[in-house]
Amino acid sequence: MSERPRRRRGAGRKAKHAARQKATVEIAGWADRRIPYFEVLDEEGLELIETNAETVLEEIGIEFREFPRALELWREAGADVDGERVRFPRGLCRSIIQKSAPAEFTQHARNPERNAIIGGDRTVFVPAYGSPFVRDLDQGRRYATLEDFENFVKLTYMSPGLHHSGGTVCEPVDLPVNKRHFDMVYSHIKYSDKPFMGSVTAPERAQDTVDMAKLVFGEAFIQENTVVTSLINANSPLTFDSTMLGAATVYAENNQATVISPFLLAGAMSPVTVAGTVTQILAEALAGMAYVQLVRPGAPVVFGTFAAAVSMQSGAPTFGTPEPSLILYAAAALARRLGVPFRSGGGLCASKLSDAQAAYEAANTLQTSALAGVNFMLHTAGWLEGGLVMGYEKFILDADQASILGVMLGGIDLSENGQALDALREVGPGAHFLGASHTQANFERAFYRSVVADNNSFEQWEQDGSLDAAQRAHAIWKQMLNDYEAPPLDPAIDEALTDYIARRKSEFADRDY
Amino acid sequence: MSERPRRRRGAGRKAKHAARQKATVEIAGWADRRIPYFEVLDEEGLELIETNAETVLEEIGIEFREFPRALELWREAGADVDGERVRFPRGLCRSIIQKSAPAEFTQHARNPERNAIIGGDRTVFVPAYGSPFVRDLDQGRRYATLEDFENFVKLTYMSPGLHHSGGTVCEPVDLPVNKRHFDMVYSHIKYSDKPFMGSVTAPERAQDTVDMAKLVFGEAFIQENTVVTSLINANSPLTFDSTMLGAATVYAENNQATVISPFLLAGAMSPVTVAGTVTQILAEALAGMAYVQLVRPGAPVVFGTFAAAVSMQSGAPTFGTPEPSLILYAAAALARRLGVPFRSGGGLCASKLSDAQAAYEAANTLQTSALAGVNFMLHTAGWLEGGLVMGYEKFILDADQASILGVMLGGIDLSENGQALDALREVGPGAHFLGASHTQANFERAFYRSVVADNNSFEQWEQDGSLDAAQRAHAIWKQMLNDYEAPPLDPAIDEALTDYIARRKSEFADRDY
Repeated sequence: MSERPRRRRGAGRKAKHAARQKATVEIAGWADRRIPYFEVLDEEGLELIETNAETVLEEIGIEFREFPRALELWREAGADVDGERVRFPRGLCRSIIQKSAPAEFTQHARNPERNAIIGGDRTVFVPAYGSPFVRDLDQGRRYATLEDFENFVKLTYMSPGLHHSGGTVCEPVDLPVNKRHFDMVYSHIKYSDKPFMGSVTAPERAQDTVDMAKLVFGEAFIQENTVVTSLINANSPLTFDSTMLGAATVYAENNQATVISPFLLAGAMSPVTVAGTVTQILAEALAGMAYVQLVRPGAPVVFGTFAAAVSMQSGAPTFGTPEPSLILYAAAALARRLGVPFRSGGGLCASKLSDAQAAYEAANTLQTSALAGVNFMLHTAGWLEGGLVMGYEKFILDADQASILGVMLGGIDLSENGQALDALREVGPGAHFLGASHTQANFERAFYRSVVADNNSFEQWEQDGSLDAAQRAHAIWKQMLNDYEAPPLDPAIDEALTDYIARRKSEFADRDY
Repeated sequence: MSERPRRRRGAGRKAKHAARQKATVEIAGWADRRIPYFEVLDEEGLELIETNAETVLEEIGIEFREFPRALELWREAGADVDGERVRFPRGLCRSIIQKSAPAEFTQHARNPERNAIIGGDRTVFVPAYGSPFVRDLDQGRRYATLEDFENFVKLTYMSPGLHHSGGTVCEPVDLPVNKRHFDMVYSHIKYSDKPFMGSVTAPERAQDTVDMAKLVFGEAFIQENTVVTSLINANSPLTFDSTMLGAATVYAENNQATVISPFLLAGAMSPVTVAGTVTQILAEALAGMAYVQLVRPGAPVVFGTFAAAVSMQSGAPTFGTPEPSLILYAAAALARRLGVPFRSGGGLCASKLSDAQAAYEAANTLQTSALAGVNFMLHTAGWLEGGLVMGYEKFILDADQASILGVMLGGIDLSENGQALDALREVGPGAHFLGASHTQANFERAFYRSVVADNNSFEQWEQDGSLDAAQRAHAIWKQMLNDYEAPPLDPAIDEALTDYIARRKSEFADRDY
């Protein structure tokens, strides 16, 4: 793979723009943003949060648990280490990050046309992550299997609105916990050519991910380039544990990207206010990203955020509500001020079904994420039931929304053709535009076409079986899996991967933790 | 009614803020905006659209059909009148509007605590308007009746997220077309004390609306104050007809507010591009609002917009797609630059059911409308099937979203309590916030509580009957109608209204147009 072509920016961009002209974008590594960011806090408000986060880091500090190396690195960097508690001189974390963390980075895919640039005025849409269950209209809710995992990799590969294959798109619960990462990484490589995420549930599984990537991209290429982006959650409040620190360390050492994500149910794992929660998010993300830079300056890091609000009646997480949206807008602005890429968002919901609740909640978070300026939008498609379930129908519905957001981020065409003054002159008062020459010249690429919405008349819809959106989505994913064709993979690479997996799997016993 | 108290701003605001502290806001005339507006075009882009709209007004012009008075007024104002086509010197419409149209106005309600201020940093949420059909889970889709109309007035009255009773919340098709306005206006007055909209289907029906309002508010009060806001659609492209002009004229003469709304299915009634459509919207709105100012300088006008995109395959209107959102963002900014209140948005969708399609599409438009800065959000709740159907369950689901948007518009509390540094100090790393004193002190007003979302565990949800969102909404509206209590109405006013209606209905024969 060492002679694989580097992405030629000019040609790639041109191809991408040509592709965007069509209703479905076949190849595009991200959505380009040509609209402003939406900011809910002004300069003064953002500075207040930044000041408070520094106070948290200085006074309260962060615990790095059962991971002596982190404590050592922090001591060397000038932090105050007291047991496992690390307190940071004001500005230390920020200055470490700003000294070496890249503002954006390319995550290479095995098909270079699918390389994703993460950061800047770009959004990369990524499927949902981590659910032990799946749901579809045929079989209802059940534990996920490797077959489900492969299905979601295939569906993501075929979804033009999704740019990234994701990571644990669902947990293949039929495989032992300590070996399923082999099959997950292999699936991403085998059944897709989009970029993917690696294992984080143990340092050695992170290393396996890196080693498998080496078989695809070549060892030298990997040391210079990022080919895996992986999710490192903080144990909020104000704690990182040895599992996540171990995985983050492996990835950083290998120049691979990590998304450092405070994972908060506000009111339980953070204060019950928006400003307090944002403060904690910033403190945790600063400490985690700075740690990565201490391990290997320049290793790509993403400022991550996952925030839901707990119901004050039941303690259950809630989604699509206003407070998490406000948190997300503020956190995105703080990441921009810091100068690193930002991850958040997605089609989050608490609903058990692909019903109206699921859709309102998902749309609210998807809209917020897009306008806030999320660069790496994990959980874009498939999320149900607070992340416990990956829904087949929900996936199709959300992926359609991702395409909508991609168009919206593109903004308003103010070219002469976009201005359409001649069309207005041609048609004039009281007539209609359907037959106008401007309409004819533009109709193919005009207006987003949903793959799943039914816009027909009531009578036509009745004739078509009175299907709801979930039922239509059901037919779509079945047809997609039926039509799926794997992207070509060099048989030598495939064999090297399967050999590696067989050897590694034979080296230790199955274990369910 | 002449001694009815004027709204005391100080006290009213205080009461409103106190109310906002609770999970449900009982009395509030609008949602206050404490977050910025989201703008997709920069200064240069907006100026380009403004320049082009002036070109449309100057070169192509607007037709004012079968309404000589409009042509007369335009001739006097210095426009070029050629038959029914009016062409406007550049800047004429804008200068007429900016000379006299108020930037905001109070629409008085019969309960002064429910007065709505329309314009500025406020959003008034208003139910959907104009559907001949209704739908609910018991009876499916059917023609609307007066009973449905009354039900939606009652449900709106009881919905804390909706500030306005709306107008033709559905068409009471069981009543003759030429007399149903009496019953609609009466229902708004009798079953609610929120502000309402008047009839626009004929000038004499507009006059009936004004005359009925006089019985409630007193003749003198009405000449000084606005008590009705009514919807005047343009016949796009670039045309106003005599029906709408007649109604607009009656309302303007009586100092009552009109919403001048280009109603566009882009690609059919406007160019197939976003910028072209926004240009046409601005031209039509400028001409319509300026006409109202010619009739009576200072009469409140609202810059209205309704824009959907037609499917280029079928010609059907589509909703929740990116282009109408971009149109809405741009139009809102243009209204702000002009200095008048803006109407758009709502829970628009093409779906036949309260399913995921309905919810994604509605949420996309609701989010856009709130962030764009809609002041008068018509169609907030109930809209199905491109406006052909008012849905009972959809109404409940959308009204919940209106409450969500109200909280989001309120922005982030940066008070010391909001910053929650003491909570972070109290809890520290690895613990949880549920029992923290800050959480205890804040939990009652922390975090939005949906009335219809199910956030329970899967097991609990199953035990509760595995209901989807529409089924839960169904139970809610039935319970609401069951619990409904009419706001008190002075029996003398009630009698005056019913006498007026009986007399007027006897004066002419029933007619179905």
